Amino acid sequence: PPTEPSAHDYLSRMGPVCHEKSVCLPEETQTNINLMDVFNFVDLLPAKNGEEPTMQFLLEIVEILTNYVRKTFDRSTKVLDFHHPHQLLEGMEGFNLELSDQPESLEQILVDCRDTLKYGVRTGHPRFFNQLSTGLDIVGLAGEWLTSTANTNMFTYEIAPVFVLMEQLTLKKMREIIGWPDGEGDGIFSPGGAISNMYSVMIARYKFFPEVKTKGMTAAPRLVLFTSEHSHYSIKKASAALGFGTENLILLNTDKRGRVIPADLEAKVIEAKQKGYVPMFVNATAGTTVYGAFDPINEIADICEKYNMWLHVDGAWGGGLLMSRKHRHKLNGVERANSVTWNPHKMMGVPLQCSAVLVRERGLLTGCNSMCAGYLFQPDKQYDITYDTGDKAIQCGRHVDIFKFWLMWKAKGTVGFEQHIDKCLDLSAYLYDKIKNREGFEMVFDGEHTNVCFWYTPPSLRSLPDGDERRERLHKVAPKIKAMMMESGTTMVGYQPQGNKVNFFRMVISNPAATRSDIDFLIEEIERLGHDL
Amino acid sequence: PPTEPSAHDYLSRMGPVCHEKSVCLPEETQTNINLMDVFNFVDLLPAKNGEEPTMQFLLEIVEILTNYVRKTFDRSTKVLDFHHPHQLLEGMEGFNLELSDQPESLEQILVDCRDTLKYGVRTGHPRFFNQLSTGLDIVGLAGEWLTSTANTNMFTYEIAPVFVLMEQLTLKKMREIIGWPDGEGDGIFSPGGAISNMYSVMIARYKFFPEVKTKGMTAAPRLVLFTSEHSHYSIKKASAALGFGTENLILLNTDKRGRVIPADLEAKVIEAKQKGYVPMFVNATAGTTVYGAFDPINEIADICEKYNMWLHVDGAWGGGLLMSRKHRHKLNGVERANSVTWNPHKMMGVPLQCSAVLVRERGLLTGCNSMCAGYLFQPDKQYDITYDTGDKAIQCGRHVDIFKFWLMWKAKGTVGFEQHIDKCLDLSAYLYDKIKNREGFEMVFDGEHTNVCFWYTPPSLRSLPDGDERRERLHKVAPKIKAMMMESGTTMVGYQPQGNKVNFFRMVISNPAATRSDIDFLIEEIERLGHDL
Repeated sequence: PPTEPSAHDYLSRMGPVCHEKSVCLPEETQTNINLMDVFNFVDLLPAKNGEEPTMQFLLEIVEILTNYVRKTFDRSTKVLDFHHPHQLLEGMEGFNLELSDQPESLEQILVDCRDTLKYGVRTGHPRFFNQLSTGLDIVGLAGEWLTSTANTNMFTYEIAPVFVLMEQLTLKKMREIIGWPDGEGDGIFSPGGAISNMYSVMIARYKFFPEVKTKGMTAAPRLVLFTSEHSHYSIKKASAALGFGTENLILLNTDKRGRVIPADLEAKVIEAKQKGYVPMFVNATAGTTVYGAFDPINEIADICEKYNMWLHVDGAWGGGLLMSRKHRHKLNGVERANSVTWNPHKMMGVPLQCSAVLVRERGLLTGCNSMCAGYLFQPDKQYDITYDTGDKAIQCGRHVDIFKFWLMWKAKGTVGFEQHIDKCLDLSAYLYDKIKNREGFEMVFDGEHTNVCFWYTPPSLRSLPDGDERRERLHKVAPKIKAMMMESGTTMVGYQPQGNKVNFFRMVISNPAATRSDIDFLIEEIERLGHDL
Repeated sequence: PPTEPSAHDYLSRMGPVCHEKSVCLPEETQTNINLMDVFNFVDLLPAKNGEEPTMQFLLEIVEILTNYVRKTFDRSTKVLDFHHPHQLLEGMEGFNLELSDQPESLEQILVDCRDTLKYGVRTGHPRFFNQLSTGLDIVGLAGEWLTSTANTNMFTYEIAPVFVLMEQLTLKKMREIIGWPDGEGDGIFSPGGAISNMYSVMIARYKFFPEVKTKGMTAAPRLVLFTSEHSHYSIKKASAALGFGTENLILLNTDKRGRVIPADLEAKVIEAKQKGYVPMFVNATAGTTVYGAFDPINEIADICEKYNMWLHVDGAWGGGLLMSRKHRHKLNGVERANSVTWNPHKMMGVPLQCSAVLVRERGLLTGCNSMCAGYLFQPDKQYDITYDTGDKAIQCGRHVDIFKFWLMWKAKGTVGFEQHIDKCLDLSAYLYDKIKNREGFEMVFDGEHTNVCFWYTPPSLRSLPDGDERRERLHKVAPKIKAMMMESGTTMVGYQPQGNKVNFFRMVISNPAATRSDIDFLIEEIERLGHDL
């Protein structure tokens, strides 16, 4: 047997319970077994006699995690402790990211876990506004812990009976909320909104040109897709990946609020047809990434019906508003869509990842993706195999994303999600009102979602006349403030340019922990950091 | 304020700490706040005064989960408690899967969690052999719990600094193990082997015909892909999705062990060229799904070089053998591949999901997928933005799959993975030797991986002469035994037909908990259940 790592190392990793070799031997000790196998085996598994140290290890992990959760919600802690890549790579106070051939002790593993959290970003912190997905719902977190403990796969009812049914019932509920009669249709949870959007393009193509599945894109005429110039870049990624080509994705003009102008869609459809191309797919966004704009779905649906095009609604960000009686009108017409992307992991505060694509017509998802793998989807199983979902997916194995969402829905009820949505929109109204007339702030638009976009102009720039110099200098303000924010670790908010607009802040509110005082803090922090720029 | 659910309901959910309204109010109570908001808020978050009940809830969840882990490894418990879909949908002993508008109590949430586990499948049970992914590594599980608590997204260094670096270092280590000089190249963790394989086809297309990204598949000649008739169906799914068409995926003949016959590849390449098509991509499988066959990579690589084709190695299942000095020769030539799929969540026992695609040439992954979204990948950030990985992906948001793997690697060292792999292969050799001459058992082939495929013939069929009747009856044996196995819940193993071979059992060993006694149990269970068929 190899001499390193020594059996002693393994022993010392496992604590006192394992010091007696005979105690640690698993049931099979017949042949060819060496000490390393035995102790490694004990390390891996709570075998009968190794149970206690293993459980002790898990409980120490839980201690680390619950401390982290407590601190995450404590406003006196930082959102992050920023370090540059080279600093972390060089090893912060003994935190060594490199992998080695020899095992570490379990004590060191616990230290690694603490360090991993220490140098990370607290996305659940009440002052973390950097992404569309923020917050840390405790029931959702419990759901994720259970999911990883169950460690199974969504592809068959056989090995995920409960989760498969939960997914089916939840998707039906979502379709009812969209407004499809009796919640009929189909759908699947996918690894994020980009993949959900990709599904929609694939299914649309299968609906109109099913022969592409077998013969490829050359079997179809030149197909054209349409989406807003403000839409998410995943539509462009799908056009490239699926073989349409990004040039065949036509970008639509928007109004001041970032909403698609329906007349522009119709004009571009007609233009494409005149060139002999086939307009096939329109994506209407419900809640654009930067502006939070809602495209006018009904007017777009009219055009889609007139020209026989597939209507997809990308509600990755705005779909959550369907849960609110007060705000769901912003998605009026969504029931006319052929497919909808809706990410509970964004506006509804479900932990990452949780994204659904919903399809109005049953059968398309399977027709499009089915390859009938014999080793997984045996037709001669003893149960009703229509519950096996794997052949609908472009994936084979599929992570269980449903449980945390289902559990949160149980815990909150539909009304709980509604309250959360309404509260976030109230907070964004509060922010808008707070800064629309505040000195040094300028709004980019008057929006409909929790996106509030604004420029902060430091005193030194305020007297400059409009023009290139002012624009160039203003363009540098947001990145500078953001960098200082991250260095000081007090709060985080996104920024970007858009079209001909120089860098501005994009505030988004989806964090259930956020209150008005956090909004106040953010604004004062921007003023504090930016005052002398 | 709405009257239902009453504030009292919310109060009663939260236990004694919350009975005093004033205690529960979060810091912001200024305006427009109603009781529902307050108590729902407390439910969601461990705000200062709601901290204790929330922590209590999390600890009760942990109690449920650790009990589940204990039982999972206890051979006296069942692998599953099988029920048909309609039974679970009707509600088992009060386990109600339906979602409702009103919230449930946290006590009921705990009951739901227990029921979810009760009616699920214990994929970590030492007698669960049903899938390529089995087992429950405790360090990996701890890693998943931490990952969900950190609840962040891989797309930028900004919000996942530690995880992004861990991914980078781990991918480099994997490339070193593949054998690429200095571990150079690129790669990404994706949501499963099917998506990793899809990446490989996309990248190959981008390498040879970059204009497809902008102009679509019609800009390229007719492209042809090659893969084994035994390869995973994800290659076919990719051909359909990416616009090649499944007819342009040519299936290659295999030998008795299920390995691609290189001469057949060359003949089919020549045939395709004669038709004017362009052979572009060859997938060689390292560890096929059913047979566990390793295609001869070196001979295939010779042909790929000769005809200028991309060589992908799908090592989703067999990639783990690269960690074993004893078994890695089965992948000889893998260093000549242009890309490799390797799923640590299969043979290496990492919790689901954990799949990597590795690419030899740097720059292709970004070139192929980059769309430069301004709101996420700002060029004017304060840190080195080459660490932002999001624009390499077809996803936007991307789940953190790296941490559990990194943590397991730390805990085991490379040697720990090697021991695990060697042990699994030893166990499969034990199984093979055990049944190759056993009455009633017939081997399908003599394999190289942990896949052991065999027929069990009940006594009543043994005297039947070879022929259609025997074949038809034998075809029904495995499904019947499997059904009885699931009803009794004692063990689980897969079965399927393959080509002209009727249903046979496919035993696979990746579960670190499995021992020889579990193998013995499986065989005796098959005999017990199948004896009177």
